[in-house]
Amino acid sequence: MSEKISGIAASAGIAIAKAFILENPELTIEKKRVEDTASEINRFSAAVEKAKGELQIIKENALRDLGEDKAAIFAAHLLVLEDPELIDAVKTKIEGENVNAESAMDEISGMFINMFEQMDNEYMKERAADIRDVSKRVLAHLLGVQFSSPASIAEEVIIIAEDLTPSDTAQLNRQFVLGFATDIGGRTSHSAIMSRSMEIPAVVGTKVVTGKIQNGTILVIDGIDGEVIVDPTEEELVLYRKKQDQYKEQKAEWAKLVNEQTTTSDSQHVELAANIGTPQDVQGVLENGAEGVGLYRTEFLYMGRDQLPTEEEQFKAYKEVLEKMEGKPVVIRTLDIGGDKELPYLDLPKEMNPFLGFRAIRLCLEQQDIFRTQLRALLRASVHGNLKIMFPMIATLVEFRAAKNVLLEEKEKLAKANVDVSENIELGIMVEIPSTAVLSDRFAKEVDFFSIGTNDLIQYTMAADRMNERVSYLYQPYNPAILRLVQMVINAAHKEGKWVGMCGEMAGDPIAIPILLGLGLDEFSMSATSVLPARSQLSKLSKTEAAKHIDTILNMDTAEEVVQFVNENF
Amino acid sequence: MSEKISGIAASAGIAIAKAFILENPELTIEKKRVEDTASEINRFSAAVEKAKGELQIIKENALRDLGEDKAAIFAAHLLVLEDPELIDAVKTKIEGENVNAESAMDEISGMFINMFEQMDNEYMKERAADIRDVSKRVLAHLLGVQFSSPASIAEEVIIIAEDLTPSDTAQLNRQFVLGFATDIGGRTSHSAIMSRSMEIPAVVGTKVVTGKIQNGTILVIDGIDGEVIVDPTEEELVLYRKKQDQYKEQKAEWAKLVNEQTTTSDSQHVELAANIGTPQDVQGVLENGAEGVGLYRTEFLYMGRDQLPTEEEQFKAYKEVLEKMEGKPVVIRTLDIGGDKELPYLDLPKEMNPFLGFRAIRLCLEQQDIFRTQLRALLRASVHGNLKIMFPMIATLVEFRAAKNVLLEEKEKLAKANVDVSENIELGIMVEIPSTAVLSDRFAKEVDFFSIGTNDLIQYTMAADRMNERVSYLYQPYNPAILRLVQMVINAAHKEGKWVGMCGEMAGDPIAIPILLGLGLDEFSMSATSVLPARSQLSKLSKTEAAKHIDTILNMDTAEEVVQFVNENF
Repeated sequence: MSEKISGIAASAGIAIAKAFILENPELTIEKKRVEDTASEINRFSAAVEKAKGELQIIKENALRDLGEDKAAIFAAHLLVLEDPELIDAVKTKIEGENVNAESAMDEISGMFINMFEQMDNEYMKERAADIRDVSKRVLAHLLGVQFSSPASIAEEVIIIAEDLTPSDTAQLNRQFVLGFATDIGGRTSHSAIMSRSMEIPAVVGTKVVTGKIQNGTILVIDGIDGEVIVDPTEEELVLYRKKQDQYKEQKAEWAKLVNEQTTTSDSQHVELAANIGTPQDVQGVLENGAEGVGLYRTEFLYMGRDQLPTEEEQFKAYKEVLEKMEGKPVVIRTLDIGGDKELPYLDLPKEMNPFLGFRAIRLCLEQQDIFRTQLRALLRASVHGNLKIMFPMIATLVEFRAAKNVLLEEKEKLAKANVDVSENIELGIMVEIPSTAVLSDRFAKEVDFFSIGTNDLIQYTMAADRMNERVSYLYQPYNPAILRLVQMVINAAHKEGKWVGMCGEMAGDPIAIPILLGLGLDEFSMSATSVLPARSQLSKLSKTEAAKHIDTILNMDTAEEVVQFVNENF
Repeated sequence: MSEKISGIAASAGIAIAKAFILENPELTIEKKRVEDTASEINRFSAAVEKAKGELQIIKENALRDLGEDKAAIFAAHLLVLEDPELIDAVKTKIEGENVNAESAMDEISGMFINMFEQMDNEYMKERAADIRDVSKRVLAHLLGVQFSSPASIAEEVIIIAEDLTPSDTAQLNRQFVLGFATDIGGRTSHSAIMSRSMEIPAVVGTKVVTGKIQNGTILVIDGIDGEVIVDPTEEELVLYRKKQDQYKEQKAEWAKLVNEQTTTSDSQHVELAANIGTPQDVQGVLENGAEGVGLYRTEFLYMGRDQLPTEEEQFKAYKEVLEKMEGKPVVIRTLDIGGDKELPYLDLPKEMNPFLGFRAIRLCLEQQDIFRTQLRALLRASVHGNLKIMFPMIATLVEFRAAKNVLLEEKEKLAKANVDVSENIELGIMVEIPSTAVLSDRFAKEVDFFSIGTNDLIQYTMAADRMNERVSYLYQPYNPAILRLVQMVINAAHKEGKWVGMCGEMAGDPIAIPILLGLGLDEFSMSATSVLPARSQLSKLSKTEAAKHIDTILNMDTAEEVVQFVNENF
């Protein structure tokens, strides 16, 4: 008898293979007295160096296969091993207390982990996870224990784990790892995002998968419907092989659309763009036939390092993206730091509600040196392509005007210094705060474009932290209130002859797409791997027909009704 | 030469008197070795008992003069002194380490204070402040140091302090303390709220007042314009005595309106109600001539204790309020706990963004035993007056329907048990989440009334934590986006023949009142002391004229323009 385990569909596709249980070995640490502390410190330093060597290799592999933002994780791990606060504390403990390196490392790192975890802040909790990951690596070397490293896998398997750490995912070999399933995580957890960018079928958040599966058991991962089939029957295998073939056919069909325009069945054109985090991501944008970059998140330039990026570093990154996109539109968002994304070297105050706090444009308008450096880099890069600049977290027209003013001042300074700057840079804002959506008719008179950031817009409009599982039921993209705000923004923009994009998760969501088309959205920006499925879906939809349903949808009471209506009518 | 110090006007009125600097003495703790630990523990226990005795008296005074919610602060302090985790730890330390009681108490309480402060949560930070307050009291007894207690003041003074602690404010003698000014705090800080409810003129958040004023210096506190005049000239004294007289005259004029209806200059009636926290507050409601209770916050019933209140305790409190209000409407809000208001005995998970978290109706729908107990108490009390029940933090119609369903189930159970329940209980919701304002036309078909909770509605709509000083500039009641949402709600309700109240700070704000009148708000609920000034203001305003300005106001770009317009046109 087979068994079906349900979870969250994290990455589409069907995988069939045997299970490989990825376990993190329990490391048993004994506290021992040592007399020769000098040689114990040497033993510790050697283990740290081995761990650094491994991390260096993993980081380079990640940079090659996965891009700069993923590699940044390991740069952060390396920084942990170079942090004197941690490393010297361990050495001092060995020397001062005559204890062995294992117990000194375990106690000191435990102290840091506790401290960071207590900080009640997602960024700091990630720091705690980094230290835990790094500490385990060093301890394994000290103890001579071998990890069941995903890098060692050399046959086709499906990985089963409680969760996948950043180091795990970076070491996955796409040739052998056909899919994975985890106990914890959601659609936007680290492992889910990785599975999509690596195009490995995955089901996450099953709660029970590690408890129910043995090493070597045959599994089916259905990443389309979010199911894991344990020990499938012959009939099921036939069924899922067919589903697998259908999915492959569909992908092949999508692939034919790479060089096509995005055109609806009634010959309307909409623009499909992709979201990126680093210049390396442009390759995926082009491979998936996106018509532009709808959102370049510049935060990665500032993360995983110990000081601000220089103007020159930024200029190079922006120029690289603009050049690679060869004249296609590139919307670059200015720094959106703060909230859940902190920069240790900026020493920002801790906040009770960081999502409602001092972040993005609020911070940039106060710490103008940071903002001006970025704007100069953007202005200088503008001559290398089709640049559009976008400010995040704008809540009032006063903020927009202040930010625009800073941009104009920097532009004037560059002109005086005879630096070339494009005269055709569009200037827009993210609409991700309810006040801005409600007042979009006033904003539309002053901005060149809007890009609706649904991730934040939904969490503020519903007053529900999208990272908080206890209120995740309120994260409702299809709530009629959200759709009405989207309509307000689109209508306001069109009345002034401006265009509207959307760069949240919602823009690539098959249920939202028909509604957004009907509402008149001009640009859909999504993860690169969603572009072709979206193009295929849009080619079968009629904009005129979709528009006819809008009144009905916007007068519904609940998100559930909207989903049912879309499923029945599109 | 006199000097003017500007701050935040916390409580209106003018006070003239000499300065009394309220200092918290520095307590110098020396760590000493003690041999006779048994008698040291006795010395410690005696100091704890003395502190308890003092707190008992302060608590009773507070209960008599200030009401149950203020007294709850000292109940919490007493609980600290009864907490074995703290007290036993001190005794163990004395015994185990042969140290004196002062240093043991100082170290143990310091540890708890650090722990609570690191929790990055307003409620826990208050716990840290409680422990600090209590610990100082015990240490003063151990060291034989006298506090400059506000209770000892026996001549007319103005208190100058860095900040006032809950114990300070509770000990103020209204007869002698004519006003106060502090370095820190804002309009909604503890000391500011206390000053308004005690009707003592106060200026807070001056930053510098303690550094610039000596004991005995003559001061003017201008709580109307938020200024402290140090060493005023004769001319200034004449001026401020005149301002003081004018304010007294104005108060006398307001007092005449106690038994009047609230009627605009064009003979339109609006309802002025008051917000309360405990049954004791009803006295102030009646003294200030409010026409009802627009918001009874039931949280205080649950706070400052170590277990949930019983159905009977709640029933008595609700019945008392309903009876004292003698048939006037009383809107009771069901439990709004979570967010910044935690209950230690519920053991709620810590959240990264508590304002966007698991609170109020979200919690009640999951922990239905708590919710059902409260609903039964409310239903049983309903026969004793004019009860309206209101659910907080409703974000979707699904939640409203679920909560209503629970209410109907409890009603049916009571009917089967032959318990009398009123048949005329109106059922409404707080509109404090943007989604609900945007979808208010759908809600209006199912609720009996709305009450707009502006404090939360503004913070969510602007995505700015109202407790976070770095983004306080975004807490904009007059932002046209907020006013448009208010209009949506009022229009939607009126279309269905329902009424709309407002129970946030904004309802009593002189700048907002003309706009809210023009928008057609039916009920204004505010702190009791604001009722008469608001009635006076409304009697001079024409609803018809105010309504004519609404289109202009709602098409403005910024909050600043709105304020200027109101100042020029009303």
